[in-house]
Amino acid sequence: MKCTVCKGPAVIDVRRHNANFCAEHFLRLCRDQVAKAIKDFTMLQPGERALVAVSGGKDSLAVWDILLELGYQADGLYLGLGIGDYSDTSGTFARAFATERDLTLVEVDLPTDHGFDIPTGARAARRAPCSACGLSKRHLFDDAARRGGYDVVVTGHNLDDEAAVLFGNVLHWQADYLGRQLPVLPARDGFPRKVKPLVRLGERETAAYCVLRGIDYIVEECPMAAGNKHLGYKAALNAVEATSPGTKHDFYFGFLDRASHRFAADAGAEREELRPCATCGAPTTGEVCAFCRLVERAAVPVALGRRR
Amino acid sequence: MKCTVCKGPAVIDVRRHNANFCAEHFLRLCRDQVAKAIKDFTMLQPGERALVAVSGGKDSLAVWDILLELGYQADGLYLGLGIGDYSDTSGTFARAFATERDLTLVEVDLPTDHGFDIPTGARAARRAPCSACGLSKRHLFDDAARRGGYDVVVTGHNLDDEAAVLFGNVLHWQADYLGRQLPVLPARDGFPRKVKPLVRLGERETAAYCVLRGIDYIVEECPMAAGNKHLGYKAALNAVEATSPGTKHDFYFGFLDRASHRFAADAGAEREELRPCATCGAPTTGEVCAFCRLVERAAVPVALGRRR
Repeated sequence: MKCTVCKGPAVIDVRRHNANFCAEHFLRLCRDQVAKAIKDFTMLQPGERALVAVSGGKDSLAVWDILLELGYQADGLYLGLGIGDYSDTSGTFARAFATERDLTLVEVDLPTDHGFDIPTGARAARRAPCSACGLSKRHLFDDAARRGGYDVVVTGHNLDDEAAVLFGNVLHWQADYLGRQLPVLPARDGFPRKVKPLVRLGERETAAYCVLRGIDYIVEECPMAAGNKHLGYKAALNAVEATSPGTKHDFYFGFLDRASHRFAADAGAEREELRPCATCGAPTTGEVCAFCRLVERAAVPVALGRRR
Repeated sequence: MKCTVCKGPAVIDVRRHNANFCAEHFLRLCRDQVAKAIKDFTMLQPGERALVAVSGGKDSLAVWDILLELGYQADGLYLGLGIGDYSDTSGTFARAFATERDLTLVEVDLPTDHGFDIPTGARAARRAPCSACGLSKRHLFDDAARRGGYDVVVTGHNLDDEAAVLFGNVLHWQADYLGRQLPVLPARDGFPRKVKPLVRLGERETAAYCVLRGIDYIVEECPMAAGNKHLGYKAALNAVEATSPGTKHDFYFGFLDRASHRFAADAGAEREELRPCATCGAPTTGEVCAFCRLVERAAVPVALGRRR
């Protein structure tokens, strides 16, 4: 197997590009794909301050590394979610990456700062763990970016993630979610801009990027996610991709090119109803934002438990 | 397992309805679902003459049987496609069904009437067999319906078929196909109306319907279809359905309710360009229709082969 670029020995094949790469040209491919995504979707401007949501996994560490390589100014944000050993280990990888490179890693700890962890909080609030976790992360990313004066929140969502989310949204034809599923969400109504620079890379590529760059990351998946629908959607798309490489790319980018505008008004309709949360001031469609409602329901049982 | 309706012993569970049925109530369910589809989408009016496209498989024989049970006037149309033993066997089942019930079965034979069979024709025209077959069937159904003065062509596409086609169209965001993927295509520009009364039944249900009604059908799939993308899409959706029963139903009917209108203009755009085929007079977007182009390319090598 030879590198398609230099004809030297290849270390990886990328079937949807019908190409093989040596380490040097694979790392260049990854950087080029991120640079292309940033340019095509106007994600970042030189001189802007980016806050990367870092989990300690391959995607978030890869995107942080690539942004720095491309010359962007990027700090990290690590959220401690209190998911037992998983959180302890993921935090260790995130901190090690930052320390070795002398980078700024902002830390927020859900149990310490808000009185609940994801497993007990989700149970108390009768929410699926991934749902409680997702809304907490979105809220805390937004909040940390506002407090720190960052221009943009960067997440490590890759092509596999976005294609699977799109599949779920399409299976249920959730018009408002479809209207909002873009690689860039512009800053608006107190929300910082949010960007996904890895949308042109699959998870196999971000893993290979980390290995080749010597970046240690947490390999195991979050134990709370086992058996969730998102992983089922990924598996279904992987089965199609195995037969027809490039299907996921076409699905996601075809949606952006030829379909997402058809759902834009549905996302806009909800956006127009935003007002400040009565508790924390974050933009919300209700009286109190979903995170503060979660805190109300989730933080109490933990406090009661501690009192006993 | 008890019948949800009468509490007698059940013979089948239908997970997406979260219900079990005895033979009598399952057959009633099938008829009711077809009646509901016909009513909801205004597929058929009493007194209209329907032509059912009959392959000898479970779906087409089930829909023919159910239409007759519901009191509609329905003849059958069998197309001999020249796919070796498969065609011979499927024809036998179609004829037996019609003969036993004293029904009218119109027959068209592609090799006899048009000089080619699907396997050699597809090769000669350099088309995938399923593509050559699909366009031939559509053309010959339309043609037979026009000649016979039928009001409507009925096909046995079930929920699994439609969900898989929708999945393929969505994976590639084919806006014109999405705009046209409806359970009823109205008569227009020389095309007869086309309806799919089985869209509320899955293929497991049409198979069970035939078994319980004592209808013999060809069980094997068409050998030309093995490994095609459509079957891959079905398998991917089946994996999701197994975890979340009802997903296929929501996917297809959610599309009809909340998304298909967003693509209607794209289908309309192509429709407006239709004119009569220079060779056969069928409506087409080109000079000569796709079927006549296939005949031109496919029929010649067979004839040459015979001359040698």
